[in-house]
Amino acid sequence: MENVLKPMDAEQLRENAHKMVDFIADYYKNIESFPVLSQVQPGYLRKLLPDSAPNHPEQFEDVLNDIQAKILPGVTHWQSPDYFAYFPSNSSTAGFLGEMLSAGLNIVGFSWVTSPAATELEVIVLDWLAKLLKLPEDFLSLGQGGGVIQGTASEAVLVVLLAARDKFLRRYGKNSLAKLVAYASNQAHASLQKACQIAGIHAENCRFLETDSSTNYALSPDILQEAISKDIAAGLIPFFLSATVGTTSSTAVDPLFELGKIAKGNNIWFHIDAAYAGSACICPEYRHYIDGVETADSFNMNAHKWFLTNFDCSVLWVKDRSALIQSLSTNPEYLRNKASQGNMVVDYKDWQIPLGRRFRSLKLWMVLRLYGLENLQCYIRSHIEYAKHFEELVSLDQRFEIVAPRTFSLVCFRLISPHNDDDFCNKLNHDLLDAVNSTGKIFLSHTVLSGKYILRFVVGTPLTEERHVNAAWKVLHDEATKLLGRGSAN
Amino acid sequence: MENVLKPMDAEQLRENAHKMVDFIADYYKNIESFPVLSQVQPGYLRKLLPDSAPNHPEQFEDVLNDIQAKILPGVTHWQSPDYFAYFPSNSSTAGFLGEMLSAGLNIVGFSWVTSPAATELEVIVLDWLAKLLKLPEDFLSLGQGGGVIQGTASEAVLVVLLAARDKFLRRYGKNSLAKLVAYASNQAHASLQKACQIAGIHAENCRFLETDSSTNYALSPDILQEAISKDIAAGLIPFFLSATVGTTSSTAVDPLFELGKIAKGNNIWFHIDAAYAGSACICPEYRHYIDGVETADSFNMNAHKWFLTNFDCSVLWVKDRSALIQSLSTNPEYLRNKASQGNMVVDYKDWQIPLGRRFRSLKLWMVLRLYGLENLQCYIRSHIEYAKHFEELVSLDQRFEIVAPRTFSLVCFRLISPHNDDDFCNKLNHDLLDAVNSTGKIFLSHTVLSGKYILRFVVGTPLTEERHVNAAWKVLHDEATKLLGRGSAN
Repeated sequence: MENVLKPMDAEQLRENAHKMVDFIADYYKNIESFPVLSQVQPGYLRKLLPDSAPNHPEQFEDVLNDIQAKILPGVTHWQSPDYFAYFPSNSSTAGFLGEMLSAGLNIVGFSWVTSPAATELEVIVLDWLAKLLKLPEDFLSLGQGGGVIQGTASEAVLVVLLAARDKFLRRYGKNSLAKLVAYASNQAHASLQKACQIAGIHAENCRFLETDSSTNYALSPDILQEAISKDIAAGLIPFFLSATVGTTSSTAVDPLFELGKIAKGNNIWFHIDAAYAGSACICPEYRHYIDGVETADSFNMNAHKWFLTNFDCSVLWVKDRSALIQSLSTNPEYLRNKASQGNMVVDYKDWQIPLGRRFRSLKLWMVLRLYGLENLQCYIRSHIEYAKHFEELVSLDQRFEIVAPRTFSLVCFRLISPHNDDDFCNKLNHDLLDAVNSTGKIFLSHTVLSGKYILRFVVGTPLTEERHVNAAWKVLHDEATKLLGRGSAN
Repeated sequence: MENVLKPMDAEQLRENAHKMVDFIADYYKNIESFPVLSQVQPGYLRKLLPDSAPNHPEQFEDVLNDIQAKILPGVTHWQSPDYFAYFPSNSSTAGFLGEMLSAGLNIVGFSWVTSPAATELEVIVLDWLAKLLKLPEDFLSLGQGGGVIQGTASEAVLVVLLAARDKFLRRYGKNSLAKLVAYASNQAHASLQKACQIAGIHAENCRFLETDSSTNYALSPDILQEAISKDIAAGLIPFFLSATVGTTSSTAVDPLFELGKIAKGNNIWFHIDAAYAGSACICPEYRHYIDGVETADSFNMNAHKWFLTNFDCSVLWVKDRSALIQSLSTNPEYLRNKASQGNMVVDYKDWQIPLGRRFRSLKLWMVLRLYGLENLQCYIRSHIEYAKHFEELVSLDQRFEIVAPRTFSLVCFRLISPHNDDDFCNKLNHDLLDAVNSTGKIFLSHTVLSGKYILRFVVGTPLTEERHVNAAWKVLHDEATKLLGRGSAN
């Protein structure tokens, strides 16, 4: 057993990790020099890497060089200040430090006993965040509820859907699965559809209810009530409603209070997906968007989106944790221990799909402590100000129109077709998006609302300043001018 | 907008991250000074932290001090060389550097376009690892198959169970869910039971088939064939078989080739869970334990267990990726893009439960490159040698017995009762476990096999050397002596 590898030598870790810190800090220093959207072609990396793993160790410097030369060209830079696509995925110094520590300790916190601090810090920090959001006390850990960090909003909606499903199957018998009906607007995130597929909810029992510009793409309580009544009359069993605060396409806000009343009246599990916009609700002036959350059974926001906590950190609160646990617990002999058997502790393995879990509360704790509430509010407000500013720039150019009201930091807009032709207009905006993204200077994404192809401009990265928004507008303006010919319309 | 927070300032990141590197390197330097199993009481942390998040920023030094004083006492040190519980969760310098870089870039690689390098490196590195394991070519990316990194083995078994379920529902109609039957031994990991719950497989259709010491707790092909025949005769539909290579309780190895033949003969999806033991199969002398993998539809191993890749990194290969994609894909407008629509690329969002995903292939790539195959083989072999050594120490003490054959690096053993009384003997071993873990010097876990309470001693942390195994034996020996009174039996 000579020459045994020493894969965790403290001094080698120290030496190489210091180099990696400098690599990452330099990356941020130079981040504006990269094309935001990677410009590589499919299959590019296969040509650059060997066909198999090496037999013998390689040098760390060679790996770092490869990252620079081969990996970074294939990275789409979510942290670039010129990134305005999808929703943001915030990195921050605090979030990064938390990830480092979590990777360093490398514990697997499935049960309390496997690292009590991991479970207890999560319980505490999610109570902190619930208080910042002024969530009702029912969601805090003291009573029957509590918070848990999931990987993503997809997992959050899946676990509550399963809890609701099983509650209803216990009541109506397990053969009633085919009768269960879930409701949301057609603006709800695709993760709900996926959760239904996974949970075995029949596709024809998933009601993604029509929305349009008359409600700014929010779900109409009347349409919901009508759908529920019709399903009940048909012998079906309504069991789950998901409302969205800040839809992906246009940040529409469903009317929580009225929807919640209907859900309660029909004894349906009421989930709120505030994955993106939840973060804004730490500001008093935006908190009213989640008024009505007191009628909900579960509430989710992604701290990894717009709350400076590195991916992944999706925060879910429930009022009745026992419903989750009844669906998701297993209790094999090899994991039994005194604290769990005595019901003295939270075992988060029973609140989620996987068994293992990382120490993710560290990064959220560090974000809250190193920045503090006032700075975090200021951060959110600055992005919304920049989005307002962008909205004004678009509004001043008569070639463009704003397509849906801006509520948070997303602006939905498009070029107006000179020919008043829908298909042509859609093609025009598709081509504009392609043109601006191909410059590598900025990255935007798109959606379709009522058949209209629309550009989405989201302000949300930690490095974005007003000058980046101005520069982005210039790229859009210039590419539109090229596309339209002379740009005489401006 | 004065005093706007600068949460991602490259120089502040550099300064603080260097401090965190030193904190983590010092942690490893001093790791043996901590009690391996945290000795705190439930609720300890609530007493040490404030009730709410601060309004104003706090100093990084204060947070570091709190981590030292308040968090570390609540950590169970999975990386301690004196950790012998459950299965290991390896940290390494390479794995840690990969995690740092992934957290630094902080991309969300759901589709190819959102960071082509993330998808392409994963495809390449999983082909590399498949070759090290000498998996059949069907599992490589070139044909219809391919590999994907899941968070945990729980998610791996869930996604293939869903793929199998939906394949059968497409064939037999969606109302045949109640007829679907899944098979595994009663030694299969609890994650299979959980996956069945999630997928809506009826509990009475989950066959966890009896095993005993006559097969060393491996699943008997005869028992499987009998169960399948009986179910078919009863009008049920066998659809899924999970075999384990290295069960959690005793590292039993199911007979893959014979089980696979039965699965094929009955057209059942055949999954292999080699979460722990898969890593050993990079050594030619252990590769035979997965002979028969060519009959499987899917194969899973956790690189985060015993392969030096920091948690989480569970590697799943399938022969027919389209089955996964048919179950798990969604295609909302706001994620459409040229590369995806043109079927030119892999979009891993359709191979997993969540939408978002981290750049996890970086750490596996760095492990393979910075260590190389020969070192990794040597690493595995050294742990198995230490486990053999521990087995000898136990065997030499007549107060103890080895309860199941040691195949990899797990030793299952127990104190023999002086009174030949089963309950007393179980209590005795329970008390011994409690006593050794309470010393804080080592951490072991337990299981129950055929009604016997058994201690599990797993060698698997990167820092464990022979002297730690000797010291662990001394603790066990001494606590046994205390417990038995005089220890004259030795």
